[in-house]
Amino acid sequence: MNGADALITTLADNGVTACFANPGTSEMQFVAALDREPRMRSVLCLFEGVATGAADGYGRMTGKPACTLLHLGPGYANGAANLHNARRAYTPIVNVIGDHATHHRGFDAPLNSDIAALAGPNSVWVKSAECADSVGPLTAEAIVASYGAPGGNACLVLPADSAWNEATVKGPVVTPPAFAQPDTAAVEGVARALAFAKTPVLLLGSGACGEAALAAAGRLAAHGVRVLTDTFTARQARGEGRFRPDKLPYFAEQALKTLEGVDLMVLVSTQRPVAFFAYPDRPSVLVPEGCSVETLCGREVDAAAALNALADAVGAPASGPVEAHAAPEAPAGRLDAWAIGAAMARHMPAQTVISDDAVTAGLPIFTQTRAARAHDWLSLTGGAIGQGLPLAIGAAVACPDRKVLALTGDGAGMYTVQGLWTMAREKLDVTVVVFANHAYRILSIELGRTGAGNPGPAASRLLDLGDPRLDWVAIARGMGVAAERVETAEAFDDAFARAMATPGPRLIEAAMG
Amino acid sequence: MNGADALITTLADNGVTACFANPGTSEMQFVAALDREPRMRSVLCLFEGVATGAADGYGRMTGKPACTLLHLGPGYANGAANLHNARRAYTPIVNVIGDHATHHRGFDAPLNSDIAALAGPNSVWVKSAECADSVGPLTAEAIVASYGAPGGNACLVLPADSAWNEATVKGPVVTPPAFAQPDTAAVEGVARALAFAKTPVLLLGSGACGEAALAAAGRLAAHGVRVLTDTFTARQARGEGRFRPDKLPYFAEQALKTLEGVDLMVLVSTQRPVAFFAYPDRPSVLVPEGCSVETLCGREVDAAAALNALADAVGAPASGPVEAHAAPEAPAGRLDAWAIGAAMARHMPAQTVISDDAVTAGLPIFTQTRAARAHDWLSLTGGAIGQGLPLAIGAAVACPDRKVLALTGDGAGMYTVQGLWTMAREKLDVTVVVFANHAYRILSIELGRTGAGNPGPAASRLLDLGDPRLDWVAIARGMGVAAERVETAEAFDDAFARAMATPGPRLIEAAMG
Repeated sequence: MNGADALITTLADNGVTACFANPGTSEMQFVAALDREPRMRSVLCLFEGVATGAADGYGRMTGKPACTLLHLGPGYANGAANLHNARRAYTPIVNVIGDHATHHRGFDAPLNSDIAALAGPNSVWVKSAECADSVGPLTAEAIVASYGAPGGNACLVLPADSAWNEATVKGPVVTPPAFAQPDTAAVEGVARALAFAKTPVLLLGSGACGEAALAAAGRLAAHGVRVLTDTFTARQARGEGRFRPDKLPYFAEQALKTLEGVDLMVLVSTQRPVAFFAYPDRPSVLVPEGCSVETLCGREVDAAAALNALADAVGAPASGPVEAHAAPEAPAGRLDAWAIGAAMARHMPAQTVISDDAVTAGLPIFTQTRAARAHDWLSLTGGAIGQGLPLAIGAAVACPDRKVLALTGDGAGMYTVQGLWTMAREKLDVTVVVFANHAYRILSIELGRTGAGNPGPAASRLLDLGDPRLDWVAIARGMGVAAERVETAEAFDDAFARAMATPGPRLIEAAMG
Repeated sequence: MNGADALITTLADNGVTACFANPGTSEMQFVAALDREPRMRSVLCLFEGVATGAADGYGRMTGKPACTLLHLGPGYANGAANLHNARRAYTPIVNVIGDHATHHRGFDAPLNSDIAALAGPNSVWVKSAECADSVGPLTAEAIVASYGAPGGNACLVLPADSAWNEATVKGPVVTPPAFAQPDTAAVEGVARALAFAKTPVLLLGSGACGEAALAAAGRLAAHGVRVLTDTFTARQARGEGRFRPDKLPYFAEQALKTLEGVDLMVLVSTQRPVAFFAYPDRPSVLVPEGCSVETLCGREVDAAAALNALADAVGAPASGPVEAHAAPEAPAGRLDAWAIGAAMARHMPAQTVISDDAVTAGLPIFTQTRAARAHDWLSLTGGAIGQGLPLAIGAAVACPDRKVLALTGDGAGMYTVQGLWTMAREKLDVTVVVFANHAYRILSIELGRTGAGNPGPAASRLLDLGDPRLDWVAIARGMGVAAERVETAEAFDDAFARAMATPGPRLIEAAMG
């Protein structure tokens, strides 16, 4: 057993059995050791941002970490944007970052860099295994760190000699830390505040949007408390049979309008809401004046338990309202995001997983699918576009029996377009829908909002993706994914219905004109 | 004038007139200001790794910085791998990294992260402009820092409010720091050492491979001193009329064999050579036992002046040998890198710029083109693959009258495949050659060298890109670049000749079997 064996065995012993990899020379021992550990499924990604985003999707769907395999500092950096998103989703991930042999580092070879410094900002834990016998124990430590609670990404730096040298120990089987139980005083305090509030809202963060927590929040809704979620949540149970909270709008002025008159905001696994970006002369904090803020629980607490305790404390009914399934009419005519959302709500099967990197098209789809069959919605938690395809890969590896939808803007999709190849290689049951509006549309909107005035020719050209137009059908086929382009609502409805009925990867380019 | 105007004006006043951009909301003021500064050419890249690699190519060809425009921490991270390469090439670059407004940072909005920490490891300079009036002066400071000497990438963090607030000052016009003159004592010391050495070598680093420095090194070669270059140099003048040093081999055992019996190594703008990776039971330092090492000059010194001073001191002739142009015969039969190199040597016009990210195919091409028409060769200095297409973009923007060749492995090319779109958008005169061997071929070689044994099915699958095969012609066309696939040496020679005769972007997929 060498250090690489100790690593992979410790991972597998602890249920970490998926590895999203883009290896290099310094990771060859890890790669070779994969053949000695059949429990580990390794998935090759042609760019590290695909690997890290896939680990995020896997972790959001299973609640346990996948590992990534990354090549020194540059490999880590390539994956860092999607780890930024994963950090904001509190997803457990174990990143294995290969490094030069310990005795080689001091010579500053071309690929040398300060990996710990690069990894620090997005990680809950960064350590380097400086000898083979430290690999196993540190792997176990990384797994525990990744679980949190709440979860996060842990980075284990693996020098090449620690991987190739003989190891005498593997790491222990560890118990993932449980989420904390709710604090009784906090529950009672919020219950008292609710009794006095006229127009309270509950605001649910990522950890409070699972099926159990939403059911508990539904009890409070039945008691008359308005329930909202954060704009972007890691995973939200939606559709048939689920309680449907509203979502805090993305744009600050709309969020403040929604919250107008609210006199009490109760935070559940989240922080007080702030604007996604700052704008001249607009507030950063989205809490109305005169509104008091109470915290029911932080992210380290079992949100479902906290919400149920609160519901009990205020005497809420044993259950709240849930969504009934309702299929929209077949869309017709012009192809826009509303029509696409209608088609999705009509055809997506129960237990679909939706990875949303659709930017301006996201909200219409979200709205249209509220009464669709039961599904999970995964949001762009950190704002770093390029998450849609990778996250879908991880969700599909995690849930081979569920249909996965990757919704992506054309701009966002290009960031990690290499993900298409992995979908083809692994024959993943992912339908990719590209909203092809040939623009960074959101930026045209934001340009005005930041007070920068009307864009001239130079500015316009930096927001435009239409010259030349991307041919997504050609790009997808070039990476082995069947694809088609549709230009009308009817054609989309038909193509989408076929995609839902057919397993395997498929891309639909929705021409948004 | 707002802060964004102060920034762009200061850049343009100092000759920084190319901006490789992928902006987001926090950069909208910069984008809008581009319309008020016609001296600045902005080039949209669909991924930040393309933008940073392009700035590297531009800086290598012009000797002056381009700027990049990146979106907060994740945007920077996406560009960091190619900035790692740029750091190893000592290329001047000014990265402008948008950030949240200063008053917004403390709220930890989703896109918030520690930009300075992320940027630190690859930067020579990182500062944040905390108010509008600091933008101009700090821009000038960043430009100076980027020049070095030697050069490097400087990161100016631009909070959104510093961009949108009124500025009363722009930055000064600054004088780029000159390279230092050679140290007389060092020159005399090396001259004395050379007089006593039996088998000395000169080792030239990135800064000593320009036309003037190579001519000076040629004088020493004519005096009987063997001249080598580092394995990877930022830019090397080659071909007809240039002195041709040998190159230190990539693999450590070959490098040591080349250096066997050498009793004196003279470092010129480089450090003592070390192995690219460490391997079990092999040395890290590539200096033979008993060989003494002397430094003629560091990277901050004018290498041509130092080499000429040394040549004068030892009484070398006024000029050395230069390469005569010799065109190989037309290649025939099986398509391999040697045949491709022959075709290139036959058809590439004088002043071609070659961006090499061809991995295992690179050395055969390098060898075949040694007597081609005069050209510049840009190497993968930092080992982070995915540099080939971006670097070519920057070189083509810098040198619109020169043909640019991007040589890329299929694995390397996929890293920053989005670069094809920018080539099409800007109608750049770049011919991309993809060496399609459907594998991370270098890793199959390295796997054995690291002692990891023969790859089993799991390991093999992580080195294989052939299932499914990438269709580069479809991918290129999907991004607007004309493309063709060739399978024989004759077909390649023909396709390449046509590409050399036709301006504009073109991709040739070389099917390597």
